[in-house]
Amino acid sequence: MSSLLPQALLRAIDELGRLPGVGGRTAERYAYFLLKTDRQAAAKLAETISRLHDDVKICPVTFALIDVNEAVSPLYSDDSRNKKQIAVVEGPLDIIPLERTGQYNGTYHVLGGALSPIDNIGPEQLRSHELLERIKNDEVEEVILATNASVEGESTAVFLERQIHSALPNTVITRLARGIPVGIDLEYADQITLTHALEGRRQV
Amino acid sequence: MSSLLPQALLRAIDELGRLPGVGGRTAERYAYFLLKTDRQAAAKLAETISRLHDDVKICPVTFALIDVNEAVSPLYSDDSRNKKQIAVVEGPLDIIPLERTGQYNGTYHVLGGALSPIDNIGPEQLRSHELLERIKNDEVEEVILATNASVEGESTAVFLERQIHSALPNTVITRLARGIPVGIDLEYADQITLTHALEGRRQV
Repeated sequence: MSSLLPQALLRAIDELGRLPGVGGRTAERYAYFLLKTDRQAAAKLAETISRLHDDVKICPVTFALIDVNEAVSPLYSDDSRNKKQIAVVEGPLDIIPLERTGQYNGTYHVLGGALSPIDNIGPEQLRSHELLERIKNDEVEEVILATNASVEGESTAVFLERQIHSALPNTVITRLARGIPVGIDLEYADQITLTHALEGRRQV
Repeated sequence: MSSLLPQALLRAIDELGRLPGVGGRTAERYAYFLLKTDRQAAAKLAETISRLHDDVKICPVTFALIDVNEAVSPLYSDDSRNKKQIAVVEGPLDIIPLERTGQYNGTYHVLGGALSPIDNIGPEQLRSHELLERIKNDEVEEVILATNASVEGESTAVFLERQIHSALPNTVITRLARGIPVGIDLEYADQITLTHALEGRRQV
């Protein structure tokens, strides 16, 4: 391979191939695209990547991602946000779909992952201690466990529920509703989803 | 969105989203990965991308991609390569699979695309004139038209065949064989491929 492509291109393919889910072919395609595109576009991408670590930091309260010159996430500091309500999510990007609903004006707490023995993520790797502290300090009334619907997300929710319940039994703990997504026909819904939908049925 | 994620992250998502086939979700995933990964890894990716345009140039003979300090592609200048044989490919990355066969020791000519009226790529956008010059100068004996099996690739091959035939009628022009790929059952082969396979059948 060494003589087939220029070293600089091989290095770029190699580095782009480290991105999640990017195989050799895709990395080649990305690198070639960057070569074909104009010099400024490639330079701009390089610059934004190199500044990421300098310009982004983690909010000390919610653990969401914030600008380096912000003290606390605006999703917490903003007066319109109800600090007595916390949605607990696995990663910082999980905040986006919840905010897009426009239906939530509480605050967030980013766990930094989900319990996963295979990946060596135990309770001490998650920010559950910080969550308990916040519930106490902000006199939080409701914690919405909005972890993913995966095995890891479910066990994380169960773990957090027990922790919060034993330390602060007066906190209301809720989970996002499971059920049939909008626009999906009954015949395409899987058994587990349908079971959830039956259990969670509401009188009309 | 503006307050949901830090500006630097939004910019990175925006730039990564320009890569071919990368949508919003994937760009978010890439950007978040680069944030989570250590600072050096992100810096290294940024550096390789920013150096691409400076360190890679186009070979003036074959139009393959070469190191900026090379004069001509080693796939041409190397003594072991048969300069009287040219494989014509659409893009510089098409050289890789041909070289990987280890069965070809001729040279290459990168067209820089395929005829595509929709994309405004006509004969003058391809390096067909340079190909004719090379056939003359190097007294080339065989031109292998190795364009893609797409409509554009096929019409490009037909166009080149006519051009070469009328300008240099003594040049042998060949096409890569079409047929059933190794490892594919007959029942899964499409009609057109099977038609090619029948037409190209060989006595054993």
